[in-house]
Amino acid sequence: MKTLSRNRSHGGVQGVYSHPSRETGTEMTFSVFVPPQAAELGDGATLPVLWYLSGLTCTHANVTEKGEYRAACAEHGIIFVAPDTSPRGDEVPDAEDEYDFGKGAGFYVDATQDPWSKHYRMRSYIEDELPRLIGEHFSADMARQAITGHSMGGHGALTIGLRNPDRFRSISAFSPIVAPSQVPWGEKALGRYLGEDRDVWRQYDAVALIEDGACVADLLVDQGMADQFLVEQLRPHLLAEACEAAGIAADVRLHEGYDHSYYFISTFMADHIAWHAERLNN
Amino acid sequence: MKTLSRNRSHGGVQGVYSHPSRETGTEMTFSVFVPPQAAELGDGATLPVLWYLSGLTCTHANVTEKGEYRAACAEHGIIFVAPDTSPRGDEVPDAEDEYDFGKGAGFYVDATQDPWSKHYRMRSYIEDELPRLIGEHFSADMARQAITGHSMGGHGALTIGLRNPDRFRSISAFSPIVAPSQVPWGEKALGRYLGEDRDVWRQYDAVALIEDGACVADLLVDQGMADQFLVEQLRPHLLAEACEAAGIAADVRLHEGYDHSYYFISTFMADHIAWHAERLNN
Repeated sequence: MKTLSRNRSHGGVQGVYSHPSRETGTEMTFSVFVPPQAAELGDGATLPVLWYLSGLTCTHANVTEKGEYRAACAEHGIIFVAPDTSPRGDEVPDAEDEYDFGKGAGFYVDATQDPWSKHYRMRSYIEDELPRLIGEHFSADMARQAITGHSMGGHGALTIGLRNPDRFRSISAFSPIVAPSQVPWGEKALGRYLGEDRDVWRQYDAVALIEDGACVADLLVDQGMADQFLVEQLRPHLLAEACEAAGIAADVRLHEGYDHSYYFISTFMADHIAWHAERLNN
Repeated sequence: MKTLSRNRSHGGVQGVYSHPSRETGTEMTFSVFVPPQAAELGDGATLPVLWYLSGLTCTHANVTEKGEYRAACAEHGIIFVAPDTSPRGDEVPDAEDEYDFGKGAGFYVDATQDPWSKHYRMRSYIEDELPRLIGEHFSADMARQAITGHSMGGHGALTIGLRNPDRFRSISAFSPIVAPSQVPWGEKALGRYLGEDRDVWRQYDAVALIEDGACVADLLVDQGMADQFLVEQLRPHLLAEACEAAGIAADVRLHEGYDHSYYFISTFMADHIAWHAERLNN
């Protein structure tokens, strides 16, 4: 693991790191904020971890710069991990001029179709490889993890969280793609990464996972009502209906006037961190 | 005035605007955050204004994206204004390959030397022209203003604040250039914008202004001890000494491990806003 930068912030340390990934076959970059409690508690102490998965076109940098999560993580003693959204590098196939497929758009799947299957393994990267690296290199309590994300990353947080209820104590999302099988972004990405058999897609679709029996106690979702992608791509009512039918207490909060940007995410970030902290620290 | 973007955030509105400036002879861009109190209080209500002047190489965008000021401004009901750091455009002379002079480095002076004097009029722009525009277009109480800034913008905040004690109720700064006449960044910029007569520089040097009799009740300054520019360019002890001699209560806080970046600024932003709010709201 290489250290690209470390900056003191809010009493802790905001770092950016990279490592050669076995899953993606590329160098992968991610950021980690370690709050002040790690130094205060001393050697051997561990802190809970909140994963944040980013949306289309993003890297680790967007939330690291604009997410406004450090004050709340410092307050609650939570490590914040922000991975990249896809493999990177000249050797990685891309869909040029398509912001919603290829680099920056890994959709948190393990691709099965050529030419994507070699490098596009973001599911295994987030589920298996990166957690091991975090557990080795940071004072992280891997028995206390939570996950959130935005848009495509909200889809990633919901699906990875729902598939791994023993690993994550809590799941939330900002303006998530809740049912990729039913919307253009998802149909395009899942079709090309996974092939045309829609049954295979269900493990990568939060609403389908819940219909198929995945269960958690509760979910927190924030969604802006002025989000340009709300009606065509996000459709949070589909998640609310699936949760209602499954007996999951989903708090889907709709916010008048808010759009899809980090101006929206940063507004509700502290709420999400406090909500996860209740579940991680008890 | 043109609206470039408006995003709801923290209950208020983060806007970016531009206008043709009479002072600089160019189109100038700035950002304004109007907190939720403006809408809650209704027509005719006005709120106090905090100016934030940015540092070398920055535009309005750096603090707007990374400054983490909106939550605190929403809490205290303060309008936050972030101007650009210099004139922009192809017609504006620049010092190519010099990050510390020319575009992005206006140093908040009215230049007197050719070829800079035509466009580089950031003092009059910040002192006269932009405040009038803000007073006209926003629900701003121009009788309650405060000013802060970072690095070159800390220099700008201190000097503009000290020269205009009737306009600003409070002045603070993050890692400011406190005595530009005594450090390389300042000697270069003031020499080229203003000429070699160092007496002329004193109105643009916070320590010299205080030595020459400028007075305020108190100042708040935060400075990182791991700041790469601390010893050569910033030298906060010069400000502390001048304030001590003048009877100004300067709280110059030195922070172990913090550098010159927005990771530092964002850590202490809420403190500064609360400090200004005490002085603006009483």
